[in-house]
Amino acid sequence: MSNKASISCIGIDPGLGRLGFALVRKEGHSFFAEEFGCIETPAKTDISLRLEMIYNKLGERIQCCSPDFMSVEKLFFGRNTTTAEYVWQARGIVLLLASQYKLPVYEPKPSQIKVAVCGFGSADKKQVQRMVQRMLNLKEIPKPDDAADAIAIALTGIALHSYSKKAKAGGFLC
Amino acid sequence: MSNKASISCIGIDPGLGRLGFALVRKEGHSFFAEEFGCIETPAKTDISLRLEMIYNKLGERIQCCSPDFMSVEKLFFGRNTTTAEYVWQARGIVLLLASQYKLPVYEPKPSQIKVAVCGFGSADKKQVQRMVQRMLNLKEIPKPDDAADAIAIALTGIALHSYSKKAKAGGFLC
Repeated sequence: MSNKASISCIGIDPGLGRLGFALVRKEGHSFFAEEFGCIETPAKTDISLRLEMIYNKLGERIQCCSPDFMSVEKLFFGRNTTTAEYVWQARGIVLLLASQYKLPVYEPKPSQIKVAVCGFGSADKKQVQRMVQRMLNLKEIPKPDDAADAIAIALTGIALHSYSKKAKAGGFLC
Repeated sequence: MSNKASISCIGIDPGLGRLGFALVRKEGHSFFAEEFGCIETPAKTDISLRLEMIYNKLGERIQCCSPDFMSVEKLFFGRNTTTAEYVWQARGIVLLLASQYKLPVYEPKPSQIKVAVCGFGSADKKQVQRMVQRMLNLKEIPKPDDAADAIAIALTGIALHSYSKKAKAGGFLC
């Protein structure tokens, strides 16, 4: 297998008011942030219409970027179920799009994202963001936070994809 | 306004493994269950594909039945977040379809469904099902439970729709 092979992942930080997305490409040992940003929906609007906005806008980005696979953060909520229900519903739309565009899906937990990007599971938000900036050779930490998080999620998706390919080839168990 | 006016509501009892749906029409003072049933998705299948199955199958039913509006139960979960995340994601797909088909959405709470169907908020599941059977003049209690629940949710949607129309006309505040 050549190290020069190019793979691309769309990373998603799910949310209803603001959903972060990032298209990261790996070529050899280098990573490139081809595109990143946020999809925002207006607060005082029907939830069903806001979900349709996410469906349409994210669908456009996937069609345009043609990633090889998707990485969506696995969410954990405490008792704040009011926020949770909206974020989960938006996440349902993201997964629907993955299936419609035939994208394999990786669902890293927050601790896996920290390990994949920083090398240790107790890294804080700022450490993850600085490492994202360094790995992608960016002049500044990407803004807003949701877009930076989406880049970290995409990088983790690429790591999980590489591990699973190596594991399938008998290299090691993941 | 004529009492003979016909309105129809699609009621949804959201779920990932089994989603209940029912198309209920009100004509004058009579209710008719035009169609009811369940959309089931196989357990050992990717969540994204199961959400796409729901999207496709429920979309077909909506296109076929052309309801005037939708009623989807508002969910409440305790600590069982594993089930909750799947049901919420499926509910996101339902709301997306409502927006795509331009259907106004009512989101009754469980207590509102019991009040609308049985007249009191402490009614149990069996009492709701028997009242559904009586209101729709059915020979038996509809099976499975998720379909019977969807009929109750549709009946509640029709009640909420009628209240909001009367309230807008200045009849009373709801």
